[in-house]
Amino acid sequence: MHVDIAIRNGTVVTPATQAVTDLGLRDGRIVQIGGELEADEEFDATGKLVLPGGIDMHVHLTPVEIEGGVVAWVDDFESGSAAAAAGGITTLGNMTFPRPGEGLRAALDRTRASAEAQSITDFVLHPVLLDPSPAVVAEIPGLVADGHSSIKIFMIAGDFDTRGREYLDALHVAGQAGALTLFHCEDGCIISFLCELLIAAGGGGPADYPASRPIYSEAVAAARAIAFARAAEAPIYIVHLSSAEALEVCREAQAKGLPVYVETRPLYVHLTSEPFSEPDGAKYVGNPPLREQADVDALWHGLSAGHVHTFCTDHAPWNLAEKLEPGANVATFKPGVADLQTLLPLLFSRGVLEGRISLQRFVEVTSTNAAKLFGLYPRKGTISVGADADLVIWDPERTRTVRAEDDYSRSDFSLYEGWEVTGWPSHTFRRGELIARDGQVIARPGSGAWMGCTSTGCRLSLAVLQKALIASACSWVRLVSQSAPNAG
Amino acid sequence: MHVDIAIRNGTVVTPATQAVTDLGLRDGRIVQIGGELEADEEFDATGKLVLPGGIDMHVHLTPVEIEGGVVAWVDDFESGSAAAAAGGITTLGNMTFPRPGEGLRAALDRTRASAEAQSITDFVLHPVLLDPSPAVVAEIPGLVADGHSSIKIFMIAGDFDTRGREYLDALHVAGQAGALTLFHCEDGCIISFLCELLIAAGGGGPADYPASRPIYSEAVAAARAIAFARAAEAPIYIVHLSSAEALEVCREAQAKGLPVYVETRPLYVHLTSEPFSEPDGAKYVGNPPLREQADVDALWHGLSAGHVHTFCTDHAPWNLAEKLEPGANVATFKPGVADLQTLLPLLFSRGVLEGRISLQRFVEVTSTNAAKLFGLYPRKGTISVGADADLVIWDPERTRTVRAEDDYSRSDFSLYEGWEVTGWPSHTFRRGELIARDGQVIARPGSGAWMGCTSTGCRLSLAVLQKALIASACSWVRLVSQSAPNAG
Amino acid sequence: MHVDIAIRNGTVVTPATQAVTDLGLRDGRIVQIGGELEADEEFDATGKLVLPGGIDMHVHLTPVEIEGGVVAWVDDFESGSAAAAAGGITTLGNMTFPRPGEGLRAALDRTRASAEAQSITDFVLHPVLLDPSPAVVAEIPGLVADGHSSIKIFMIAGDFDTRGREYLDALHVAGQAGALTLFHCEDGCIISFLCELLIAAGGGGPADYPASRPIYSEAVAAARAIAFARAAEAPIYIVHLSSAEALEVCREAQAKGLPVYVETRPLYVHLTSEPFSEPDGAKYVGNPPLREQADVDALWHGLSAGHVHTFCTDHAPWNLAEKLEPGANVATFKPGVADLQTLLPLLFSRGVLEGRISLQRFVEVTSTNAAKLFGLYPRKGTISVGADADLVIWDPERTRTVRAEDDYSRSDFSLYEGWEVTGWPSHTFRRGELIARDGQVIARPGSGAWMGCTSTGCRLSLAVLQKALIASACSWVRLVSQSAPNAG
Amino acid sequence: MHVDIAIRNGTVVTPATQAVTDLGLRDGRIVQIGGELEADEEFDATGKLVLPGGIDMHVHLTPVEIEGGVVAWVDDFESGSAAAAAGGITTLGNMTFPRPGEGLRAALDRTRASAEAQSITDFVLHPVLLDPSPAVVAEIPGLVADGHSSIKIFMIAGDFDTRGREYLDALHVAGQAGALTLFHCEDGCIISFLCELLIAAGGGGPADYPASRPIYSEAVAAARAIAFARAAEAPIYIVHLSSAEALEVCREAQAKGLPVYVETRPLYVHLTSEPFSEPDGAKYVGNPPLREQADVDALWHGLSAGHVHTFCTDHAPWNLAEKLEPGANVATFKPGVADLQTLLPLLFSRGVLEGRISLQRFVEVTSTNAAKLFGLYPRKGTISVGADADLVIWDPERTRTVRAEDDYSRSDFSLYEGWEVTGWPSHTFRRGELIARDGQVIARPGSGAWMGCTSTGCRLSLAVLQKALIASACSWVRLVSQSAPNAG
Repeated sequence: MHVDIAIRNGTVVTPATQAVTDLGLRDGRIVQIGGELEADEEFDATGKLVLPGGIDMHVHLTPVEIEGGVVAWVDDFESGSAAAAAGGITTLGNMTFPRPGEGLRAALDRTRASAEAQSITDFVLHPVLLDPSPAVVAEIPGLVADGHSSIKIFMIAGDFDTRGREYLDALHVAGQAGALTLFHCEDGCIISFLCELLIAAGGGGPADYPASRPIYSEAVAAARAIAFARAAEAPIYIVHLSSAEALEVCREAQAKGLPVYVETRPLYVHLTSEPFSEPDGAKYVGNPPLREQADVDALWHGLSAGHVHTFCTDHAPWNLAEKLEPGANVATFKPGVADLQTLLPLLFSRGVLEGRISLQRFVEVTSTNAAKLFGLYPRKGTISVGADADLVIWDPERTRTVRAEDDYSRSDFSLYEGWEVTGWPSHTFRRGELIARDGQVIARPGSGAWMGCTSTGCRLSLAVLQKALIASACSWVRLVSQSAPNAG
Repeated sequence: MHVDIAIRNGTVVTPATQAVTDLGLRDGRIVQIGGELEADEEFDATGKLVLPGGIDMHVHLTPVEIEGGVVAWVDDFESGSAAAAAGGITTLGNMTFPRPGEGLRAALDRTRASAEAQSITDFVLHPVLLDPSPAVVAEIPGLVADGHSSIKIFMIAGDFDTRGREYLDALHVAGQAGALTLFHCEDGCIISFLCELLIAAGGGGPADYPASRPIYSEAVAAARAIAFARAAEAPIYIVHLSSAEALEVCREAQAKGLPVYVETRPLYVHLTSEPFSEPDGAKYVGNPPLREQADVDALWHGLSAGHVHTFCTDHAPWNLAEKLEPGANVATFKPGVADLQTLLPLLFSRGVLEGRISLQRFVEVTSTNAAKLFGLYPRKGTISVGADADLVIWDPERTRTVRAEDDYSRSDFSLYEGWEVTGWPSHTFRRGELIARDGQVIARPGSGAWMGCTSTGCRLSLAVLQKALIASACSWVRLVSQSAPNAG
Repeated sequence: MHVDIAIRNGTVVTPATQAVTDLGLRDGRIVQIGGELEADEEFDATGKLVLPGGIDMHVHLTPVEIEGGVVAWVDDFESGSAAAAAGGITTLGNMTFPRPGEGLRAALDRTRASAEAQSITDFVLHPVLLDPSPAVVAEIPGLVADGHSSIKIFMIAGDFDTRGREYLDALHVAGQAGALTLFHCEDGCIISFLCELLIAAGGGGPADYPASRPIYSEAVAAARAIAFARAAEAPIYIVHLSSAEALEVCREAQAKGLPVYVETRPLYVHLTSEPFSEPDGAKYVGNPPLREQADVDALWHGLSAGHVHTFCTDHAPWNLAEKLEPGANVATFKPGVADLQTLLPLLFSRGVLEGRISLQRFVEVTSTNAAKLFGLYPRKGTISVGADADLVIWDPERTRTVRAEDDYSRSDFSLYEGWEVTGWPSHTFRRGELIARDGQVIARPGSGAWMGCTSTGCRLSLAVLQKALIASACSWVRLVSQSAPNAG
Repeated sequence: MHVDIAIRNGTVVTPATQAVTDLGLRDGRIVQIGGELEADEEFDATGKLVLPGGIDMHVHLTPVEIEGGVVAWVDDFESGSAAAAAGGITTLGNMTFPRPGEGLRAALDRTRASAEAQSITDFVLHPVLLDPSPAVVAEIPGLVADGHSSIKIFMIAGDFDTRGREYLDALHVAGQAGALTLFHCEDGCIISFLCELLIAAGGGGPADYPASRPIYSEAVAAARAIAFARAAEAPIYIVHLSSAEALEVCREAQAKGLPVYVETRPLYVHLTSEPFSEPDGAKYVGNPPLREQADVDALWHGLSAGHVHTFCTDHAPWNLAEKLEPGANVATFKPGVADLQTLLPLLFSRGVLEGRISLQRFVEVTSTNAAKLFGLYPRKGTISVGADADLVIWDPERTRTVRAEDDYSRSDFSLYEGWEVTGWPSHTFRRGELIARDGQVIARPGSGAWMGCTSTGCRLSLAVLQKALIASACSWVRLVSQSAPNAG
């Protein structure tokens, strides 16, 4: 067969396939695996891995505009997606905040327009539900019909603690519509209480940060989100889980058959809380805080055994001066760091090469599971005929030292500065286009596209996963056999 | 490309790939997915699924010869592998018992010879460790070097309760050699005590069967096997787990990062213990017994969420007269039933179509995971270029009624007699050979082959999985990139 | 010694003492155990038990006046305390609701005055925090200084779901002041959501009652109350716990050293949820609902093993016509029943005589623990020199049939109508006064008194228990040795 | 009343009574509490506590004679009981090992004779079951009939791992007879395996000691003992529990209503494993090893919340030279230390005064619970009319420094040398006789007596506790009301 691109002789790996073979790409898709290929352009992957492009479902590349101000991170879709591409990621999921008074669809449309102008990677948008009033909640089914697959709820933000019942209604509506609801799980009452107490006691500095957002406040919030999910019969996805105790809560829910999915992020598997006591402790602030070694171990075990489903960044980049702003305290520290460009290499180096997780699980938590959960599978998240040619040629032997200055993120520091990391992407393809080579981005901003899960094939995968887990009867296999999921 | 066989337009599914596409088979292997194909022989899979052939790692197709007698099931490799093939299974793992005084290798060689003469499916052999004396244990590393990947330990049989320390030594040796140790987990002391008590009290009939082998005797045996695994730093695989309590023990071990794998079987997800009180209650006897609805639910949840890894038969077929032999009691009932031909259809019908598990998990627990755990992956267990063409064309809409008389097993009854089951294989291919069509076996006995995991590629997958979980460093990726796992 | 009353030759039992001996009472107190006694009045307890008077810390004998109406149960302190006395109870703890706009102290003073006029038993008052505004919360330390030892928070009532942070502040203030905070644990958001859903679906009748207030809504509310307790470093007491799952949450908190105390009540150990499906199902409504047998078993085990601390009624009596009011639904059924007079006999009969709990635990959960937790010990809750002569002569062999018409409660029905119950009080003494004999009350209304825990001795016991559990240093033993707890 | 001894004005405390009052003693018993007393001898306890004498149910004061040698600790009943008396303990439970070929009764009789000649305290004897052959097991019911209440099983010793079924039979016989079975819970297979492995690897020194007997080997042994208890329907008492994980196993069993009692000892609440890495690490060796801080915390929580029932020594004294014997390794270190004289003061100082447990729990775990579990209650373990006058006048303000040279034990070192401890006994009475004053023993060897639980009253308490927990019906209250438990 004649194709646009042939990638030759790589070790092609998904969580359930492994072959030293050739891939044929045409019109942005994978059209042939193995067999005989002629191609316009050839890439030799001998001695390298060929993996599905990374999917990071949790980034902040657009500002939050609220009454009285704007929270603006230092990256936008242009710089952020460049960092992603350089690091082997081909699809992003952006937290999309409505402006005051703005509806969810308006926020999505506005954000999609700006992302389409800037992004190098493909992307989806998670509308953040800041106002669970009936009119806003009523938008959700229409959004799903148009290809959106999620909403995001912050248990600590805004008014969750005063409008819980409305948020529960929203979760119910989202579940009925077929959307997955993302939960930031920390108990707002407890955190605001402890912050006040610590500050009143003369503290409130970085060393107090873990005490201001204790593990039990995460665990109980997770428990409540799960109870809401049981009541609403809706699946939930808990973002950036940080502790063994909260993970245990999720694990027990999964054992009861509840559709509870778990995301963690680099901070919680590569670092522990000791740095908070250093002079620049505020540099490490994230919500939730860094935890202890036992938590780190539990999260690695979860990534390995399957009760943690995705590994995402919560990329929320600042410059160091902003992180270390004098006078800030546990209630006002700027949370988050830049993690996009190093997400995959750090996990590969410390996870796969140091034996904590298998290569299969690496692919699963960085790509396949996210695609399945957010309705993009099998278009994304795998290497399968008909799938988008989102591919990374991965050099498992390449060692580089992490330097913030090498990173496309505009953030001027990295928590991993100076770390030696082995395993980096040599080529990143997005829908068949080479967008980065050896850490250099070569695609133009705006070449990325919004990914709707409007085709039957895409929508099915989410439904299947959810339906399977909530144990309701389904006849989807008949649908599968009648549809052409990879045709569109 | 010109190939021997083309399978056209099926929905090709593995746990991590999904495509409506064509497959090209040559010399018994999958050589091309998608693209352009010419073929000597064509199969149209339109509207059907194409799945990896089933792998049932737990069957009894050879007799147990012990001092003073022989335990002979009614199937041998000829009838058993025919039932397997008719039901969509292409690889079997047979429990291989040494004769008194016979070493493990001798038993394996003898059994391999007879299986090679009879089997329609491919197969591996698990040597059963009945005598953990140093000379026997010392055979294990050599067996692994020759391509065997497992040993089997019965916690209830023979002398586990008097030679525990030696069995622990054997587990250690097996783990060091890279083998996976299968454990039958029930506490022999408790079971023999309770059997005597029940019989002495004038009972001991089928209605007493659950009480004679209580859930806690399974759970505590699983806990002890896991503790042995921690001490020996060796992975274990617990066969035919039956209860929520024992599963919880395993799940907690997995959350600690321990390499504990779990198998369950049809009896424990399709039936509960009520039938033991019926006149023909002995018909349902298996070790362990059927349990309660809460156990059934927990096992389905485990199959769905991932803490149960494989779904196998423990095919141990008898004729009904043997099962109902007058005078038998809880200590002497003949355990086991024929399950091979209906293993996949029943799981598909009640699991996938009724929404308890996804199609992806169906493939994972019936094929992919077993291949990974026993060193056959990616040669077996997936649909990947270079893999053996072990394939099933699956008709998800075909409904049939289970009848023992339609089953290739020589057992004259089925526990599922009369059940309406939807989803059956229409074609079964083993290494590119069509061995069954619409429930009729068309291959000759002896066409199956023993599968050694001697190639680097095969051996790696087991090591990777185990190493990942026991968190030791490994450099396997380099090995992967240097080897050609699919070439041989 | 010459005393007012001698009780001769009974088997005198507390959780940690047991003797066939004589008791000497003078001026309302126990002044001598054993030895030689002359008395003005003699009671022969040969063949009977002599136990500390029962303490029921959870009753509703005063109406709730809210905006737009009054919730008025059919008993007041006169009828309620008579039922208590007839059933062997000598101290009550009444839930005391402020009127709209009324402060806690005003509500307590008002209620105390009316109770002092009516009550036959002694009593304490738990102020219910319906408005956690700073001014109201600021009253708490003063109330504790005056001898109150508790506050009550309803997680389902009023505004817990909109003012959680203020309730957490209140819990903190209460803990700092030395008070114990009672929590009704059910998640208000979930319950209101499910009630609406069930009613909208055309249901909402008694058969839906369990589904409208599911076990997980209790368990997650308990988890959140416990998390609040950790943040506030305050002890909590969870009223009327009903389920195994919620009990497990509490048990795990206790194992972490957290001061979490648990109360259950007759409904949850004597009945299961089946009656809700009967035509008069609404008769059985309580908050939370009756549960399943596994919950009943878990609560009995908790009463026996010590992780359930008290057994109280939540006496909330209605007439049957009110319970069965036509048109009521899951959101409006009248919760609660009359349980005071049968509390102890039913627990003795089904708990002690049927072997579920020991006699020692019977005394502990019906008397001693409540006295310790609410600052009344050792004045109440034991048989010790200097203690109030609150005593019950208990006939362990007396069998009676429960009849609502024999009960001093004005409620016109009993859920236990017709049950044969063995073990009844023959004499009830309150501070040395015989107040009931063979089920007949002989004391005058108003003879009961409010019990403040103002003496050092009383206050200490609460502090000790709490301090021990929250692991802060204390020097109370020195205080004990310097004080004379039983003198005042 | 005229009595032999009056103890005036102490704060008399049991777990359920508390009074500043006088006690009257006559003929070795408590005959009057409060009231008017004339006495031959007076003791002023003003400002002090009066507590039940301590009961340490786990001591080694008689040698173990086995084939090929004798294990002889440095204390016998004379020195051991002197240390006990000086430390406030009035009753001991001694592990009584049969000689090779000797039956249980013969061993008990022989040991009783020597103890009666030497002991200052009262005592019971736990026969150790080293040979569970039918003839030996058949002795058990007769022993119980004669007033013995226990047997001891070592899961690590001798032949548990080869004769498990016989030990299970023994447990069943013991349970049927009404005896409590003590279990030393560690898995012998795992420990011997790890010891060999560590020694073979060139280690095996004190620093390896924790690794040689890991926590999971204790937890799984506890799980198995509990499973045996379920099968045998017999209560068990797990000696010297050391870890959070094993405690969790027990706690879950208790929550299921199983009669599982837990003992811990000073080593596990006062020390952690760090000292094993010091040059004299072998000094700290006990079976099981010292654990980590999380284990210490869990045991304190268990002592406080009630899932640890007793606090005993496992007093097994050596001289330092024996502990530090050159050439010893993890398989041969001499386990155990002298703890009798400091058992109560250390627990009071670090437990009660530092707020970890209440004074009530102190009495419960050091006296009352042991008496109840071993059939001595209410004769022992409380301060009740008719009870033995086993009393300690306890000075809660007295501070002393621990010195081995001040200890009656012949062991020449103390792990607590130099510790400042507050709270010591000033007077110890055993059956009304003053046996120690201010740390000086003043009674003669041989004044102590064996305590049989032959009276109905004593036997009942054990039965009650067990029956309550195993949930079988009982009619004991009738028996109580007909018997005179304190008369005999």
